[in-house]
Amino acid sequence: MSLTTEFERYKNILEPELLKSFDNLNISDNLNEAMKYSLMAGGKRVRPALVFAATEALGAPAEKAIPAASALEMIHTYSLIHDDLPAMDNDDLRRGKPTCHKKFGEALAILAGDGLLTQAFVRLADPRWNISPENKLQVITAIATGAGAVGMVAGQVLDMEFEGKACTEQELEKIHNHKTGKLLLASVVSGALCGDANAEQLQRFRTYGECIGLAFQIADDILDLTATTEELGKDSKSDLKKQKATYPSVIGMEKSQRRAADLLAQALDAISPFGEKAKTLSDLARFIVERRA
Amino acid sequence: MSLTTEFERYKNILEPELLKSFDNLNISDNLNEAMKYSLMAGGKRVRPALVFAATEALGAPAEKAIPAASALEMIHTYSLIHDDLPAMDNDDLRRGKPTCHKKFGEALAILAGDGLLTQAFVRLADPRWNISPENKLQVITAIATGAGAVGMVAGQVLDMEFEGKACTEQELEKIHNHKTGKLLLASVVSGALCGDANAEQLQRFRTYGECIGLAFQIADDILDLTATTEELGKDSKSDLKKQKATYPSVIGMEKSQRRAADLLAQALDAISPFGEKAKTLSDLARFIVERRA
Repeated sequence: MSLTTEFERYKNILEPELLKSFDNLNISDNLNEAMKYSLMAGGKRVRPALVFAATEALGAPAEKAIPAASALEMIHTYSLIHDDLPAMDNDDLRRGKPTCHKKFGEALAILAGDGLLTQAFVRLADPRWNISPENKLQVITAIATGAGAVGMVAGQVLDMEFEGKACTEQELEKIHNHKTGKLLLASVVSGALCGDANAEQLQRFRTYGECIGLAFQIADDILDLTATTEELGKDSKSDLKKQKATYPSVIGMEKSQRRAADLLAQALDAISPFGEKAKTLSDLARFIVERRA
Repeated sequence: MSLTTEFERYKNILEPELLKSFDNLNISDNLNEAMKYSLMAGGKRVRPALVFAATEALGAPAEKAIPAASALEMIHTYSLIHDDLPAMDNDDLRRGKPTCHKKFGEALAILAGDGLLTQAFVRLADPRWNISPENKLQVITAIATGAGAVGMVAGQVLDMEFEGKACTEQELEKIHNHKTGKLLLASVVSGALCGDANAEQLQRFRTYGECIGLAFQIADDILDLTATTEELGKDSKSDLKKQKATYPSVIGMEKSQRRAADLLAQALDAISPFGEKAKTLSDLARFIVERRA
């Protein structure tokens, strides 16, 4: 099956479940509307796809990983909402639509982000989720660590600190690894835990996750320079305008493309023992490096 | 022992543990500094005290509840940081010191809040915490639910929506119950779970938590009118200036005081079967209603 078909299949599993997250949220309609607006804005759902594909690579059904996939998409969405705020990146467009604060105002956007982040953990601790309590706690640790102060949040701070400054390849890798890589890694690890990976298997998924995590951001940097605003659904060349350090600006375009290709090869190698069951996971790695948006 | 002594004892358990949360956060010094600045600003630590006192009321040592107490203080602190932001309450002073965004700028304050919220769940899922995985997950559910979109975050949105508007006593209670009550309730419930409460005991702690949750906010509303900026460590009469709905403004000062006293009596009644072991929990309920800051 093509990756497009797989993305569709995963979306059909995920989207009704994302909507279900709002079923019992009966306190503030405005809060729910703002959270739903951003969560259902139609992203590619790369993180949930990684979760599902990792679970399936171990022979377990994708459905077993629904709470992890939902939580990761909620956390990714919250990070976009906060990242777009005037005090942060000050972006007006996201996925081709007005950003959350443009639509609902800053205060509600801050709180919608806070709400999505918190609801992710409600979902992960759900007693109805039928994986072992131990694995559930390991998934929570993986996701909270990947999202927090040694993960994505730290990466956002580093990204800010280096804005307008020259940085070395090593510094750039540290920024990227944390800003994007750690949550992608957490997605793969969570999926593996939902598929009951043993320690040796988990290490393979971890290597895959680390490689595609970094490759994803290199590809993003390249895209910001080469794709149009229409292709991206957000302003193109925005990194350049904000004088953000990017792979092409630090090591050049050609070396960036080579590095992404190397990381892809490493990722594919790590999951090769899972054979045909890991086909979607392999396709996802290729997509991450070769995508046009 | 007096409550002051108990507060000191709890602080001596809590504060080194809060500092330990930063031990392995080695990615961004600025992020750590901003989180630490707000977390260690010397609050009363009411939520951790409720956790510890509930655990002790069941005959278990307070130490057993350290991760829950730490997580709740981190979540409370994040909510203050975000609440103080210019787009929200726009406050310059908190606990007698410049607010996080005044000291570190808005972007870092938003991220410090996000970081504290996320690290709370890292702490709660910690495999080294020696309570059962099932209880750990129940604590996570209680805290995430109390903090999220049917809890504190929803309450903050409601609070915003009613700013400058008349509201009924019922609406006010809904705002307060969510903005403050749900996280205080989560504190008591978490403490009870750390002390291995059975279902009947848990219900008693729940009743206590609901009553003191509401009483806390009524007392806060009264204090905003009657205490000075020096006593509060933040601007007094700020609710009045912002035309916020408060108990005194909706039902009058005298009726507010009576309602707080009734809730106190109900709370004390609920935990009476725990006898002398629940003395600190009783003292805390009295403090919450009768405090001057």
